Amino acid sequence: MHDYNEIIGRYEDELLNRVTPFWAERAVDRENGGFFNSLDREGNCFDTAKSIAMQWRNVYMFAALYNSEYSKDEYLELARFGFDFCWRTRRPDDGGYPAMTNAAGTPLMPGRGGFMGTMIFVYAGCACAELFRATGEERFREEARSCFTNYLAGLKESEHFSRSELFPPMRRRGCYMHLCHLCRTMLVCGCEFDDKVRTALEMTFEIIPRFYCPEAGRWLESVPTDGGFRLESSLFRTVIPGHDFETMWFLIQGAELAGNREILDRVPEWTLRIFDYTTDRKNGGLFYYMDALDKPVWDGRDMVKGWWTHNEALLAAAFSYRISGDERLFERFREVDEWSWRHFRDPDYPEWFGLVNYDGTVSNGFKGSPSKTFFHLPRALYNCIQVFKALAK
Amino acid sequence: MHDYNEIIGRYEDELLNRVTPFWAERAVDRENGGFFNSLDREGNCFDTAKSIAMQWRNVYMFAALYNSEYSKDEYLELARFGFDFCWRTRRPDDGGYPAMTNAAGTPLMPGRGGFMGTMIFVYAGCACAELFRATGEERFREEARSCFTNYLAGLKESEHFSRSELFPPMRRRGCYMHLCHLCRTMLVCGCEFDDKVRTALEMTFEIIPRFYCPEAGRWLESVPTDGGFRLESSLFRTVIPGHDFETMWFLIQGAELAGNREILDRVPEWTLRIFDYTTDRKNGGLFYYMDALDKPVWDGRDMVKGWWTHNEALLAAAFSYRISGDERLFERFREVDEWSWRHFRDPDYPEWFGLVNYDGTVSNGFKGSPSKTFFHLPRALYNCIQVFKALAK
Repeated sequence: MHDYNEIIGRYEDELLNRVTPFWAERAVDRENGGFFNSLDREGNCFDTAKSIAMQWRNVYMFAALYNSEYSKDEYLELARFGFDFCWRTRRPDDGGYPAMTNAAGTPLMPGRGGFMGTMIFVYAGCACAELFRATGEERFREEARSCFTNYLAGLKESEHFSRSELFPPMRRRGCYMHLCHLCRTMLVCGCEFDDKVRTALEMTFEIIPRFYCPEAGRWLESVPTDGGFRLESSLFRTVIPGHDFETMWFLIQGAELAGNREILDRVPEWTLRIFDYTTDRKNGGLFYYMDALDKPVWDGRDMVKGWWTHNEALLAAAFSYRISGDERLFERFREVDEWSWRHFRDPDYPEWFGLVNYDGTVSNGFKGSPSKTFFHLPRALYNCIQVFKALAK
Repeated sequence: MHDYNEIIGRYEDELLNRVTPFWAERAVDRENGGFFNSLDREGNCFDTAKSIAMQWRNVYMFAALYNSEYSKDEYLELARFGFDFCWRTRRPDDGGYPAMTNAAGTPLMPGRGGFMGTMIFVYAGCACAELFRATGEERFREEARSCFTNYLAGLKESEHFSRSELFPPMRRRGCYMHLCHLCRTMLVCGCEFDDKVRTALEMTFEIIPRFYCPEAGRWLESVPTDGGFRLESSLFRTVIPGHDFETMWFLIQGAELAGNREILDRVPEWTLRIFDYTTDRKNGGLFYYMDALDKPVWDGRDMVKGWWTHNEALLAAAFSYRISGDERLFERFREVDEWSWRHFRDPDYPEWFGLVNYDGTVSNGFKGSPSKTFFHLPRALYNCIQVFKALAK
């Protein structure tokens, strides 16, 4: 047996003594409410604009920690604190939220946020479900329901949207993997409504596997709604390894809840396949963005490495290992764990670097941004701990 | 005196024997017309989608070379070939062009292209002016006039656009530096209309210097239309060194034509200042994107280095050196020349790499993309040759 306790102890220390205090001490905006997003290496705020999706992610994470074996009253207080800020930005007419606000919560851009406006409902729904679980207050369950309903409507609308005769209506994997996660979170937290959440969860097991393209041997970000694959243009060939890994452990969590044996049987091999094409054997670590046919990515996003890719890979490897016992998966976990700890973890200040260079060296070392907050890393640490606690029994 | 002839000979060889043949042989789409944009290291097309801005840049460059001392009939043939493709995509009702088309020229996206739709008029206007100079055909002069008129209208509209109460109407430097270049090109090519082009050129000398922010010691990409600077958010602090350098030699070309001594006196010091903050003293080369206050850039664009930054820096240094004789500028030219030649120039296949890693190593090595075509590099080679020929006299 591997030394699971070493991993558990190290991840607990990282989560509870470094990462969580960093955000609780540096990100909380006591003056305006909510959380600052843009933090430099030491934790200094370099832009007070607030992404509402990031606000909800903070709320989710603090509420989930409150609901865990590491519960502290402070975590619930911070989750409520974040919820109050988000609630002030909510549009009463359609229940939607702005994408970005200034520090005080005034929307920065006009409009209803488009696709990002839809994705916010996932983070808001998960956060409110965890808050309901924490408090039993009906208003949180109601807002989770509102977000779930709005999300399904937005998702449906996006699939009927054809940008031109040359762009068929496309279905995005991001929509369905996040729906899987939202449904599972709501069910675990006691937010079911006339079996609708369970039905939506089951539907994701049908749709998600269609995003695997056998011809390319890769998971794709988007495929035509009416089936088939489009590989002739870079626009359709985007591969985001972090999403691939995230899909895997979302599927395992969802399929375990739903008792879907078929999905559980397939995920470990999928996970191994994803490691095959995303591992940078030359420089170490995992690629951030790729082209499904390995054609050039020309915006430079294949030239950096991202913290969250590695967080999701840890989760995919750990979950897949737990359900399969396949030692190759533990080996993949070990590799990513070792590389991440060496390159993303900042030895001098808490929290991990957001991006590192292709070779693992650090550039500007930011810790928070409009897409990085108290979310991917603590979620990975917490859920990996759960996996290894189960294995250590 | 420096060995200008070595530079001239080397740049001529690069331009005429490597770069120009690469595009003439690999990018021309004889089946559909126009030019392929996305070329890998060896020159293979990896996406047949066509950016109309890139089409016009090809037309401009081939026409400009035809008008040069390196004239070949083939260059005019290719410029006409590209023009014909673009003309087929033109909207008769407003004279605008789509942003992207498929290989055959059918627009990929609906809509009129927004801000990019406006910027296309710069590239189209310059291309048609050079075609008029090459052929004397009135239709090219007419289209240059149409583009000039449409561009001024689009520019004016963009400045009155306030995205919210928190975003004042902003003026973009890109608009004015390109207007300066468009006017100068039209005037040199004999495209004047009731003194309107000259008047617009003069106006750019008033406006462009306002983008230098003394507080930050940097050139900014956008400033509020009613004056002042906004430095409190990352959104307003973007610095794009390639634009800074490009502004310098556009100003010199424009000011020499207009006889604006004041601008000519200021540019060399500005250029030196830009080199001060954009030079990566640790890893070599020039930064691609920066924050005006050196706060973190969180999308990774500060972690790669771009070919065009270096092309524009060569031009800014060479032009500023020619008008000032300041040896520090020749030294900057030498440094960028040496680093570019070593890291961007592909020793095995023609054309330069689009992006290299922070340390100058090559990642996927693409040669063409929807933002890199037969334009920045040949333009820099050709115009640097002109500078050093003048100095060698």
